[in-house]
Amino acid sequence: MPVRYATPDPKSLLPVPGVTLGIAEAHIKKPGRADMLVMAFEAGTKVTGVFTQNRYCAAPVTVCRSYLDYTRDVRALVVNTGCANAGTGERGVGDARATTQAVSAALGCKVQQVLPFSTGVIMEHLPMDRILAGIPACVANLAADRWFDAARAIMTTDTVPKAASRQIEIYGKRVTITGICKGAGMIQPNMATMLGFIATDAVVAQDVLDDMVREAAMLSFNAITVDGDTSTNDSFVLAATGKAGHPKIVGEGTQEYGALQLAINEVAIELAQAIVRDGEGATKFITIKIDQGKSRDECLKVAKAIAHSPLVKTAFFASDPNLGRILAAVGNAGIADLDPARIYLRLGDVLVAEHGGRAASYREEDGQRIMKDEEILVHVCLDRGVESATVWTCDLSYDYVKINADYRS
Amino acid sequence: MPVRYATPDPKSLLPVPGVTLGIAEAHIKKPGRADMLVMAFEAGTKVTGVFTQNRYCAAPVTVCRSYLDYTRDVRALVVNTGCANAGTGERGVGDARATTQAVSAALGCKVQQVLPFSTGVIMEHLPMDRILAGIPACVANLAADRWFDAARAIMTTDTVPKAASRQIEIYGKRVTITGICKGAGMIQPNMATMLGFIATDAVVAQDVLDDMVREAAMLSFNAITVDGDTSTNDSFVLAATGKAGHPKIVGEGTQEYGALQLAINEVAIELAQAIVRDGEGATKFITIKIDQGKSRDECLKVAKAIAHSPLVKTAFFASDPNLGRILAAVGNAGIADLDPARIYLRLGDVLVAEHGGRAASYREEDGQRIMKDEEILVHVCLDRGVESATVWTCDLSYDYVKINADYRS
Repeated sequence: MPVRYATPDPKSLLPVPGVTLGIAEAHIKKPGRADMLVMAFEAGTKVTGVFTQNRYCAAPVTVCRSYLDYTRDVRALVVNTGCANAGTGERGVGDARATTQAVSAALGCKVQQVLPFSTGVIMEHLPMDRILAGIPACVANLAADRWFDAARAIMTTDTVPKAASRQIEIYGKRVTITGICKGAGMIQPNMATMLGFIATDAVVAQDVLDDMVREAAMLSFNAITVDGDTSTNDSFVLAATGKAGHPKIVGEGTQEYGALQLAINEVAIELAQAIVRDGEGATKFITIKIDQGKSRDECLKVAKAIAHSPLVKTAFFASDPNLGRILAAVGNAGIADLDPARIYLRLGDVLVAEHGGRAASYREEDGQRIMKDEEILVHVCLDRGVESATVWTCDLSYDYVKINADYRS
Repeated sequence: MPVRYATPDPKSLLPVPGVTLGIAEAHIKKPGRADMLVMAFEAGTKVTGVFTQNRYCAAPVTVCRSYLDYTRDVRALVVNTGCANAGTGERGVGDARATTQAVSAALGCKVQQVLPFSTGVIMEHLPMDRILAGIPACVANLAADRWFDAARAIMTTDTVPKAASRQIEIYGKRVTITGICKGAGMIQPNMATMLGFIATDAVVAQDVLDDMVREAAMLSFNAITVDGDTSTNDSFVLAATGKAGHPKIVGEGTQEYGALQLAINEVAIELAQAIVRDGEGATKFITIKIDQGKSRDECLKVAKAIAHSPLVKTAFFASDPNLGRILAAVGNAGIADLDPARIYLRLGDVLVAEHGGRAASYREEDGQRIMKDEEILVHVCLDRGVESATVWTCDLSYDYVKINADYRS
């Protein structure tokens, strides 16, 4: 059960002019479920993406990067679940290319105009006969209103499909942004992976789109963690079809640029938070806000030191205000000149620590009250600058171990 | 139950001439168990130590550092379990100083000649009345043959006391090295902490002792991890009483220097491995050996990326050869120019991966056979240099979550 996240209403997911989606049951790992997706874009769509930093990156990530170096004039994405096509060497790259070749033949475009994505178990090869059989099925049912189906088709151990939409006005024209993703963040449930796809019909220059995907990723998918493992397949793609018909957004600083970036960020953050809410075994959704740091980077380090500490995460699972563990994690963030005497730690609205120790006003029952909630704010003030960062994470429960110990069996 | 580590035979723990130990039941957290230790040294003993890098370091660590800056002519260590005296601000420092004051009065030495150590819950103050009452009791039963009792007195959630001895000959004289520690490594079970104390009667120069403690720490306590959390209280102290009566060891490069360093390393490694074997919830003892790296540092990074991955650790718990998770962890070690195509991964004697993917010879049943063992070797060859590193860790089990979620309650 995700923490306060329900299956989205399919009607709430707004079609994006210029985008169609088709799914198929390719029986890649299990029968009886859709496990392939083709997302097709009309000509003129601009696409950009950010990918995993893992050096053992998956074959589809290698292929995406090389195709995007060749052209941004992308006409389709092809996604499979059930097999990550990672740790598969040269044969894996050939399989990813063959997949895009088949899609390009079906859609009548160049092979480099189709980007491949995979998610699932590592170090197994794609079942190419089933993948190739699934492609015509996906293409045959391409439709604009399949975002919900698409969100379901890319799930691995996700317990709910994840999708979000926004509509805004730009130069008087209605602009839609709709996105889907699968979980579960940095943890990569079972080494399946984080995949996120957002499309809009906004009219934007390519460099603007490139900037927007980086800001959205920084504030959303790069700001979540379940257990600190970065997967081999992480990919986040932003596509703009240009069908909204407004004057092109060409640079930063305009109201329209800001409005579109904000709406894209909102969709990305909603999707990223959904991954944490549906993190493996999660029973708590935890927001970690660090402010008054010297740099965003040091704030992120402190936030992630807290978010990655198994001792902090198990204390949240137990609703135990064992808050010295948070101080220890802050001290362990790798910031050499951090002065504990200046730091304030708040849990929700309760001041827990100041002057290097427990706050005089702190009472255990106040900490206990906050810890019992399903959603918890950890707020650390470093008192040494003006920068800040926010990270979302979840607790570490028995079910986390169970899910990951049982995987594959 | 520790993984292949039994309570040491008290008779195997050899007294070190010049060292006596006394314990007391001070009722710091629970009645009915020894929870304080005084280790006293005869005049002329040289002492050195290494301490936690955590910025929220505990008050006793702060006091140890300042006293050691003042003098290395240390006459006693005083240790309590049940309360870490960390996250306790100025009052904590005062409490640690008051503890050393009381010991120095009882032994007739300067306050700066007594080093304090604490382990237990963070952000709680020491119960000074009970601590001060415990000190005369410790001093009253100082004896040379109390190493086993001392190992028991510093336990927190350790399930077995941890101690080791060696005897070697230096310049024809018998030299003894005996040490004790408590767990459980970087994880710091329940934010109790890693404490290690090793004493020898060898005759060594102060700078030699300083060098030896650093090498021993690097190869032992700094090479273990249970979950990657560095505690506020970690301390490792090496004392040399000089009672063995051989010519002083004054510099590197001699046979005697090498023999003593080796014996100290052996004791430290045996103690450090005992911490992992008794790691919270541990069911497997895992050796991670990385070789042919460009530097020891990059080998350590790869080893720790594997050792810290919850996905790898849960796979070990499940005895599941889901070995793509190890490749993903290697790729996630933060080494920008690592080439997966050159890496070899072996599990025990089984070649698992090469050329960026699964080895042609690899069979699932071979991986399964190795994974079922209680002790497992993960061997990664980076094929880009001549450096190596070894790290020891354990798996991540239900009991890890249980122990840490239940703590304090």
